[in-house]
Amino acid sequence: MPDLFDVVRSQRAHRRFADDPVPDAVIEQVLEAATFAPSAENRQPWVFVVVREPALRARIGDLVRRAWEGGARDHSAGRLPAGMLADVDRGATGGLAGAPVIVVVGADTGDVHPRALEASVFPAVQNLLLAATALGLGSALMTLPLAFPAELAELVGLPDHVRPVAVVPLGVPARPLGPPRRRPVSEKAHRDRYGAGW
Amino acid sequence: MPDLFDVVRSQRAHRRFADDPVPDAVIEQVLEAATFAPSAENRQPWVFVVVREPALRARIGDLVRRAWEGGARDHSAGRLPAGMLADVDRGATGGLAGAPVIVVVGADTGDVHPRALEASVFPAVQNLLLAATALGLGSALMTLPLAFPAELAELVGLPDHVRPVAVVPLGVPARPLGPPRRRPVSEKAHRDRYGAGW
Repeated sequence: MPDLFDVVRSQRAHRRFADDPVPDAVIEQVLEAATFAPSAENRQPWVFVVVREPALRARIGDLVRRAWEGGARDHSAGRLPAGMLADVDRGATGGLAGAPVIVVVGADTGDVHPRALEASVFPAVQNLLLAATALGLGSALMTLPLAFPAELAELVGLPDHVRPVAVVPLGVPARPLGPPRRRPVSEKAHRDRYGAGW
Repeated sequence: MPDLFDVVRSQRAHRRFADDPVPDAVIEQVLEAATFAPSAENRQPWVFVVVREPALRARIGDLVRRAWEGGARDHSAGRLPAGMLADVDRGATGGLAGAPVIVVVGADTGDVHPRALEASVFPAVQNLLLAATALGLGSALMTLPLAFPAELAELVGLPDHVRPVAVVPLGVPARPLGPPRRRPVSEKAHRDRYGAGW
């Protein structure tokens, strides 16, 4: 198994997937890693709907496409590098739906104070993404379909008290990706007070 | 370095710290891991204010204490197991302020669509916590001081466009902690539709 820092440094957003099957046992390993994340009062408010049914994956893919073509693409067109825009475009118009597994992640609003809800579910999502990376799966953290939260919730039958917070495709990557590009710590860290520099 | 799954399975919330110093080089390793997290449009909206100044740490500790004694303790008293309640109580009334380093994490609201803001910063927080765990540091994801966001922002000089989202104490643990307790995947995962079981 690769060490934590190697996994952290190689995590990328994958938006195209091969047809290779992903066994339940691998999904369980990935979700188990998610459950070890912290949450307020250790309430563990995460909900994972693991979608394999082709028709359902296609409908989630349709939501993503509608969100992308209905405004998100225009928003991003002036902001993303051309290569990344093309990659997101392919992902939003077919790549996501081509993943053999799509995990819809929800947060149980009955478990946690609203102020702590996101803090109590996105760490689990990140564990899920890191575990997928460690096991050779491609993945991505998608919030695009949350443009239509009621429709997404209805597709996978979420009750009113479970709010969808993310959609994560999982599958063998269609192609390898290089290391991520990030701005250095020195641009993001401040000593004692914002603006003091590092 | 330990493998990803060992780190994931041993992460715990630490609320009491030894006096041992934590070098800048270690803080940089931890923050670098944070910067490899995903974010919407790869905008990397995270902001880390690394607080070492004793007076400033004490004032952040005061915020935590006020939030805890002003309502959070009453809210949690009926919900937490006695041992965990006592541990949080000690943390909120002195343990946090005793950490040699407190990282105030912010999110730059100018970088990311509001719908994706939390999804673009809590994965970085989780990477930070995992990296700390891997390097032998205790840590905790605290949202208690966000009961007073304006006061927290003012203490560390955050400008209006940077919203505080979490406070993370870092230090050598005062005592080792056992493995975390979590509900199994089978209680959290659903096949294709919520309620279908796993």
